[in-house]
Amino acid sequence: MSGDRLPVAVDAMGGDNAPGTLIEAAHLAAEAFGVPVLLVGDPERLGDTGPLEVAPASQVVEMGADPARAVRRLKDSSIVRAAEAVRDGRASSLLSAGNTGAAMAASLLRLGRIKGVARPAIAVPFPVVGSTPSTLLDCGANADCQPEWFVQFARLGTAYARHRFALERPRVATLTTGEEAGKGNALVKAACELLEQPEWAADCGADYVGNVEGGDLLAGVADVIVCDGFTGNVALKSLEGGFDLLRAAVGDALVSTAEAAAISGMVHELIDPVFDFFDSGQTGAAMLLGTRGVTMISHGSSSAITLANAIRTADELAGEGIVQNLRNSVGNPTE
Amino acid sequence: MSGDRLPVAVDAMGGDNAPGTLIEAAHLAAEAFGVPVLLVGDPERLGDTGPLEVAPASQVVEMGADPARAVRRLKDSSIVRAAEAVRDGRASSLLSAGNTGAAMAASLLRLGRIKGVARPAIAVPFPVVGSTPSTLLDCGANADCQPEWFVQFARLGTAYARHRFALERPRVATLTTGEEAGKGNALVKAACELLEQPEWAADCGADYVGNVEGGDLLAGVADVIVCDGFTGNVALKSLEGGFDLLRAAVGDALVSTAEAAAISGMVHELIDPVFDFFDSGQTGAAMLLGTRGVTMISHGSSSAITLANAIRTADELAGEGIVQNLRNSVGNPTE
Repeated sequence: MSGDRLPVAVDAMGGDNAPGTLIEAAHLAAEAFGVPVLLVGDPERLGDTGPLEVAPASQVVEMGADPARAVRRLKDSSIVRAAEAVRDGRASSLLSAGNTGAAMAASLLRLGRIKGVARPAIAVPFPVVGSTPSTLLDCGANADCQPEWFVQFARLGTAYARHRFALERPRVATLTTGEEAGKGNALVKAACELLEQPEWAADCGADYVGNVEGGDLLAGVADVIVCDGFTGNVALKSLEGGFDLLRAAVGDALVSTAEAAAISGMVHELIDPVFDFFDSGQTGAAMLLGTRGVTMISHGSSSAITLANAIRTADELAGEGIVQNLRNSVGNPTE
Repeated sequence: MSGDRLPVAVDAMGGDNAPGTLIEAAHLAAEAFGVPVLLVGDPERLGDTGPLEVAPASQVVEMGADPARAVRRLKDSSIVRAAEAVRDGRASSLLSAGNTGAAMAASLLRLGRIKGVARPAIAVPFPVVGSTPSTLLDCGANADCQPEWFVQFARLGTAYARHRFALERPRVATLTTGEEAGKGNALVKAACELLEQPEWAADCGADYVGNVEGGDLLAGVADVIVCDGFTGNVALKSLEGGFDLLRAAVGDALVSTAEAAAISGMVHELIDPVFDFFDSGQTGAAMLLGTRGVTMISHGSSSAITLANAIRTADELAGEGIVQNLRNSVGNPTE
């Protein structure tokens, strides 16, 4: 810990290559970015962590485990202990690349909901060329939603986008199947009726700009895009998976002939930053909005540098008091 | 018309650049592929169409029009007349790049449903590197679905994939938020319970392989992927929009320096076919499955060559009797 600044609690046992990649990320965050880290996990498996602080946790929630059940039963698991470190004021925020459902459940059960929030939502910034990202939520916390929750997602997303991307008055849109009003399924239509009422937007300082389609997610037409967690999860994974496959196929084409291979190094130098930019995994992490603390969620397959960026983002968001901003936006500043 | 072969009825007035692009596509299809075409539209606006047959229609359904209302009211519109040409045995099939909802409504109202099909669905083949495409349905015909419809989508998709891609025993999967059983929203969970019962798959010759995620749409893990029309539409447009933006950004990177620009022609020759391959618009058209005729639906922005391919596909599917195969798969071979 450096001075009075609280560390970021890192679930060191969660992720495809845990704990190795998490330890590497923690070192990177501490050394390159100066962010203090608290590694939460089994000290024996963590080994020598050098100057990094360790909070012991003897259990691990496996990737395939039932989240709520695992969090209830595995009270000494790394994700539960990480959430407790935030709750108890020993960490500013937490990051997990493990079981997403377990991270949500631990955050919800140990940190509690912000009053007025029915359901927390996962917010993912989608990259936009030449502009700030568009934040999509919910990307998977709530597979089945009520129309009223869309208004809360809009309020939470507004506070997040304003805070993270310095947007004075975020533009909020609904994700649906056509730009015209009245397009979509019954859930979205009901949600749009609520979102079209001006009070919520005036209250939290947003502009509601109506409907956008899947093709608009990366086009910069809105700063916050709300949807149910099923649709958001499918859209996010479709794009990530599609970009990965396209990138691999382009890479293959660039070594498909001797002439191509001769220039492929130079071409990769030009186009790899573009693919990296479109890889939302590179932005570091999604944030669970709506609990009383900063909970960042990364892909299990994230690289150490991606996770180090996520640790830095967690530190920044916590240091700048995003939870208070979320409370204000939802309309319960004191609770 | 060449011999006994019926022409493909082309809605010449539908599409962003109608009728010009449609006329060009019709000439291409006729000359390059030998497919007879019946252009349906306003003869004055079509002008001299050379050897191409024209069926007159004085009205146009605009892109933004309410589909069902427009089809009921505009009885002399090009899309309605095109559907009537199929119904009356003057055309083998129809293609529209106009208002998608109007094409569906015209097909449904003029051709009728295959008996046993509650709702027709839009089937879109997604490209898979090194393999046959995976067909996603529903991509937008039904924003709100009943669980039972997923079984019909699975049956229709099985017949389509078998017919179009010569697959003996298509693998059918459900699109949801995780591979484990029980992942997803209430609708998908209910649909999965029905799809897990072995009778339908045995009856139509499919293998049900369980859940896939958004990231699997282009990965070749299933031949047919079923979902509600809202989710399918968002996933389709997300991928199309994402690929377009990525392609543009890669193109910009390839002219960002003088050295880059010097080799960009050669690089484009290598990678443009990859981008074309991933552009599902290039596969020509989606098919509406479940009405008593072949109805192909293309993007309004499709190029003439894409539309010509769609005309050829319509001709092939109709000539090979896909509607009878769909009837067989749904279980009502005689109706």
